[in-house]
This record gives sequence, C-alpha cells and structure tokens, in this order.
Amino acid sequence: MNSRPTGFQAVRENNLGVVLRAVRALAPCSRAAIAAATGLNKTTVSSLVADLISRGLVREIGESTERRVGRPGVMLALDDRTITAVGLEVNVDYLAVVAVDLVEHELLTRHIPFDARSAGPKACTRRIAQVMAEVMADPALAGRGVIGVSVAVPGLIDAPSGTVTRAPNLRWHDTPLRDRLTRLMEEAELPAAPVLVDNDANLGAVAEYRCGHLARTPDLVYITGEVGIGSGILSDGRLLRGSTGFAGEIGHIPLLDGGPECGCGRRGCLEALAGIEPILRAAVPDLVPRGPLSGEGIAHLVAVAVERAEAGDATSRDALRTAGGWLGRGAAAVVDIVNPAAVVLGGYFVPMGPWLLPTCRAALHEIAVAPGAGGCRVEASSLGLSAAARGGAVAMIDALESGRLPLPAARSDADREGARSSASR
Amino acid sequence: MNSRPTGFQAVRENNLGVVLRAVRALAPCSRAAIAAATGLNKTTVSSLVADLISRGLVREIGESTERRVGRPGVMLALDDRTITAVGLEVNVDYLAVVAVDLVEHELLTRHIPFDARSAGPKACTRRIAQVMAEVMADPALAGRGVIGVSVAVPGLIDAPSGTVTRAPNLRWHDTPLRDRLTRLMEEAELPAAPVLVDNDANLGAVAEYRCGHLARTPDLVYITGEVGIGSGILSDGRLLRGSTGFAGEIGHIPLLDGGPECGCGRRGCLEALAGIEPILRAAVPDLVPRGPLSGEGIAHLVAVAVERAEAGDATSRDALRTAGGWLGRGAAAVVDIVNPAAVVLGGYFVPMGPWLLPTCRAALHEIAVAPGAGGCRVEASSLGLSAAARGGAVAMIDALESGRLPLPAARSDADREGARSSASR
Repeated sequence: MNSRPTGFQAVRENNLGVVLRAVRALAPCSRAAIAAATGLNKTTVSSLVADLISRGLVREIGESTERRVGRPGVMLALDDRTITAVGLEVNVDYLAVVAVDLVEHELLTRHIPFDARSAGPKACTRRIAQVMAEVMADPALAGRGVIGVSVAVPGLIDAPSGTVTRAPNLRWHDTPLRDRLTRLMEEAELPAAPVLVDNDANLGAVAEYRCGHLARTPDLVYITGEVGIGSGILSDGRLLRGSTGFAGEIGHIPLLDGGPECGCGRRGCLEALAGIEPILRAAVPDLVPRGPLSGEGIAHLVAVAVERAEAGDATSRDALRTAGGWLGRGAAAVVDIVNPAAVVLGGYFVPMGPWLLPTCRAALHEIAVAPGAGGCRVEASSLGLSAAARGGAVAMIDALESGRLPLPAARSDADREGARSSASR
Repeated sequence: MNSRPTGFQAVRENNLGVVLRAVRALAPCSRAAIAAATGLNKTTVSSLVADLISRGLVREIGESTERRVGRPGVMLALDDRTITAVGLEVNVDYLAVVAVDLVEHELLTRHIPFDARSAGPKACTRRIAQVMAEVMADPALAGRGVIGVSVAVPGLIDAPSGTVTRAPNLRWHDTPLRDRLTRLMEEAELPAAPVLVDNDANLGAVAEYRCGHLARTPDLVYITGEVGIGSGILSDGRLLRGSTGFAGEIGHIPLLDGGPECGCGRRGCLEALAGIEPILRAAVPDLVPRGPLSGEGIAHLVAVAVERAEAGDATSRDALRTAGGWLGRGAAAVVDIVNPAAVVLGGYFVPMGPWLLPTCRAALHEIAVAPGAGGCRVEASSLGLSAAARGGAVAMIDALESGRLPLPAARSDADREGARSSASR
C-alpha cells in the first residue's frame, strides 16, 4: 500500500527483478511456473522473460519434462555466461578481488599484498583502478559485462556518496572513494560500471550468510580479523546498518580501564587488545619493529605466529589465548545486545582459530548474561581474507535483482554468439 | 512467493487484517478507496468490510463527501466502541496497567505500588489476576471484549511458551507466567483472552515508537530505568529480538573491573553502577537500609532523591550525575553496535533526567566511535512508568491486525446496541 510504483517503467523494472528472483529460486522452471509463483499473468511473464533473455540474464535450456497439455514448455534458468559482478576489498596490507557470475559462482579470486596504509588514499585508489583494469582484461571475464564494482573498506562509510568518512587503520579521512575510482576507471577507458562502497565487516557478514559454512543463519555476527576489528551484524537475514550506517563498530568498545593505547586515541579498546597488531606484538615480539606496523609483512608475521603456536611456543600460544579472551569479552557485548545464533571470526583470526576460539568461547559464556550465551556458537570463517570481496560481489547481484543497480541493456546477436562460444570453450 | 496461504480461510483472515490496516490508514474512507489501496476487488472488499462490521471492528460513519457517480458511498472508520487490549507490567515495586481501544486511545491507566520482589512469582501472579478482574469490571471497559492481555516482565522471556526464563531482579526463574495467569483468569471466570508475555524493555520501545515524543523514529533504543536496566532496540521500525529473544540485555555489560557487586553475581555491570538501587544508595544514603531493597518504598526514595537534587543537595546531584556517566558508557556500547538515531531513558530515569542526561550525553559522545555518536540523541521518555504496559496494549492491536491474535467473533445485535448506548453515555 505504501510502495505504490511511480509509473509504468518502475512497475516493469520491479517486475523484471521479481521474475529474475523467481528464476533463481525455481530454475529450471517453465514460464507457467513463474506465473504461478509470482501471481503475474502469463502474457506479462512471457514479455518479461523475453526482455531478460535479450539482456543476457535468463536463458532457455531445452524442453520441459513437466507434463502439460498443448505445446511443450521450454525451461528457463539464469544465464551465467554474460555478466559478472566484482567485489574488491582494500585493507591495511592487501587488496582482494572476487568476481562472480549471475549464479554467484566464483570466476576469479585475487589476493594482492599491498601496503595500503603507507600508500595513502590517492595512491591506493590508483592501485585499485590498476587492479580493476587487470581483472577486466583477465580471460576468466572475457565477453562479460560488469554490472557493478563493490569496494569494501575497513571504516565508517557514507554509503549514499561512496565516501570513506573515517578509516583510522588506513589513515583515511573523508575520502571520496567512489567518485575518484569512477573517474580513474573512466580515464583508463574501462567499461563503465557503477561503484558502491561499503564497510568490510558488513560485506563479510553478507558473504558468511550467502556462502560461508554457517550460510543462511539469519542472526549472525561476522567479526573481521584484520588490523582493525569491526563487525557486520545480520538480524533476521538483514544487514543491521543503523540510522547513519555505522552499526557494528565493536572495535572501540572499552574493555580495560587504563589499557593499551588504541589507534583511536583512547585506551583499552577491543582493537588495542585483540587487533592483529597487538596480537603480533605479543606473539612474535622479536620480529615486530617499534612504532606502528606498516602494511607490509603482516601476513608473514601472522604465518610465523601460527607456525610457532603450532610448534608449541608458549609466547605465541599465550598471546593468542589472551587475545581470544578479549575477543570473547567484546563478543559478549554484541551477544547481550543483538543475541545472534553465531559469531564468525574472519580474516587473520581464521589461521589463529585453534588458540583464539577456546578462550573466546569461554569468556563469552562467562560474561554474556543469557544462559549459554543465548545459544550462540563461535566459529572461524571458511572464507578467510576474501570474505569481504566475495560479499561485495554477491551484494552487487542482490542490488541488480532489487533494482538498486540498472539492469544491463539488451545484447546484440553478436554479443550473444560471443557468450555462447566463450561458454563452450 | 514464500508466504503462500495454506487455504481459503487463511487468505480470508489475512485479507481481513489487510482491510483493517487500510481502514486505520485511510479512515474516514469508502469501500472503493480501500479496494484501490489494497488491490482487492470491490466485491471482496464489501464482503470483508461486512465481516469486520459484524465483529465490531469497523463501522459506517455516514455518507461520503467524495464526489462519485451513482449511489453515494458510506464512509468507514475503525469501531472504537467494542474491544479493548490490555497491557500490564510487573516490575520490582509496582504493577502498571493500560487499556486501549482499537484506535489506541487510552481507556484506563493504573499504577499500583506492589512489592513484587518480596511476593514471589506465585503470589505475584495471583495479584495480577486480581488486578485483571478489577480492570475488567471497571466501567471504563464496560461492554467491551478483551482481545488480549500482554504482560511485560523485566527479564529474559521465552515468548512462544510465555515463560519467564530469568528475571533476576524479581528473583523469578523458569516461571510459566502465561499458563498460570490464564488458569487463574479462568478460575476467576473472567472472559477468556489470550495472554502474551514479553520483555518490559521491548514493549517500552514499542510504546516509544508508537506514542512517545520521538514516535516513528525507526532506529530507537529504549532503556528501562528500574531496579534492572534493560533495553528494547528498534531497527528500521522492527523490534530486534535476536535468535532466542534475548536481544537488548545491556544491564550486565561489564563497565568497571572490580566494580560493585551485581545481582547477577559479577562485578561492575551497568546495572550495578546505574540501576535504581545503586543510584538510591548513593543519592539518599541516609534513607536506604542495608541489604537488598524491597520493592516497597522505591518510588518514595526516588521522589526524595529528585527533591534533594532540585534543592541543590550535592550528594544527590553527584550520585545522579555519576550514574548518568555510567549510563552514557553503557549507551555507547549500544550506539557502537546498533547506531540508533535516539536513546530514550525511561521509568525512574525520567524524573532524574535533569541530572542524568548531561553526563550521559557527554560520556556517550566521548566513548562512541562514530563522530557525534553517529547523530544519536539522548532524551527522557514522555511515557514514564506506564511505557511497557502501554506498549503491550498497542502490541496486542498489532497482533490482531497481523493475524497473531484471533479476531473477535461476530457480535449479536444486543451487543451492538450495548456498545452504541455505552458510547453515547
């Protein structure tokens, strides 16, 4: 009643999304099955399906095995040959890229060590544009249109403008990332594609919900394990964004009065106790230089800390166990407030899981007020450092289906021929 | 697509709710206007409206002023004369009752000082049944059917079974409140009415969202100011319940290592620092006995603390200001995690607001990580100690319209005559 369409075109765009979602849910399926499921009449469905086929989003896959009177129905499925959605993450010490097709299968994954902290926002954006050019030229994406590019950033994002309001660990501040990246991509003569900027933890949560080993857990919290600690919160399957898009910022919950100094200028924040920097300082103290870490070498230090813990080194093990306890205290605040069914530790916390998880669980159960922490599980992610990029790519597919991204234009016959031959290679 | 009705009756019940909501939104309105707004055809709307009129939920209010060809339309409105929804709150030191009609106007409000903590769950449930009998016999509800009774309790609730899992400040534990109250109401031969049990903070949040001075703020946190501190969280206008219904439990977030002992057995929880008991111990130390407070006298002690603060007493003022600072630290955790547009302090915090609010706001702004606390306002509630009861009553009306409570049966002509004469008194 409150969502009256504004005109014929809006109705049609909306209905294209409805049919696309129906094909995703029901494929392989006939036009009649879509009409039955959506309540749209058969003529409308036929016209919408023809439109989706011409845009390369739906395809016919041979004759129906459904029993029906009259002309045998042709079955429909999503067309996984023509488009791609790209998710990119920039973090303190790496860029990650994942490209997926319309059925959300991975076409390409890249992990690129990169000292984004030292590079600064401008050089970093140039590097992102370069990486986009490389990705778009990759044979894995040949012949595909890019429906959109998502960029995950560890910080507070003003989503409508695509501006990074504050990313303390990158040392970015009011960085107009979307506009800059769009301009650089234009200058590089890359195919035009809308750019959306979002928080890394939010997109990590989306990835966990869609593709992680706890997929479809409707109340789920994803905690990033990077230099910064953030969380993405799914409540009833929906991302909790809050009134200004800043929800999930657990990294600066104060846990220890007079504790270690934090990048935010305060003391005793979760991030100052259990972020990757303080963990490495405690776990491999001989290898960590004084002063703030540069992005370079973090992955290597994490690997050494894990290696030593595996070899039984007490310093490394104690450091990881202590950090796990702080993570449990931080998780307890989230559990008391949003009562999730699962907390997933991501990023570098994944390889550290064997030592972090037991103390994290114990502290959570001790501190959360609900009996048994309200039934909350704590697990390591199965997606590792590509979670946010993957979540971003998948979020683009969602945005397409719900009308927040434009549908691709109708394709020429040559395009379609190209897609067919590239799919049959 | 996923909400396929299970049969004709389900479709009809659902459509009755749709029409009821349409009448609420559009009244006074014609049947044609409802058909236009809902997409239901006119014959169906007429039949559904007739059904709602016979159940006493909708009434005709004279002829249309709309210009139309043919028979002048009769206008429809909600029938505010026939039903009532009752919300009841049990807290440590009082029972509160609010009854509303179908348009959510208050028919009756009661505040009953009652030492529920000392009474224990059984005696307390008996007292609630007694109060229900008194309320149902009140002339303000004469001739009305009770569609449902909501009971707000300060604790963890298993909503499906109506059991109070844990209410530490009442000292209740696995109390089957719904079943007991239903049985007692039957024994007292009260009209049968479904009983729903919910958390007091959740229902307080519903009341703020529907009737408070910040009504319709979609991202809003309500903090109860009672012996216990809990919160109800609205995200995008929907109550955040979490995976097992325990969301919003902020009272036991640890804020001070080695701080004062809390009722939960731990130290330094928000509730042990800023609950009404520690506030009174600090604000009016000469009047507070040793050992845990009984429910009796809390309201009086609050009034004295406020009186003294008004008169400039430094002990009282300092106590309230200090508590405000702790509330701000607790609110900061909620703000970092859910990023609300407003935090509303309820219950006894309302009269203490002039001293609590400035320090609460200052601490929140200092600690929350988003600039300016993500734009979050902190205000005192305008609903005071009746918020949860009022929220419960309103939630019953919601439950009726969304099919979670049965619609009342068709009324006899005598009933309708009764309603008419009672309304015209």
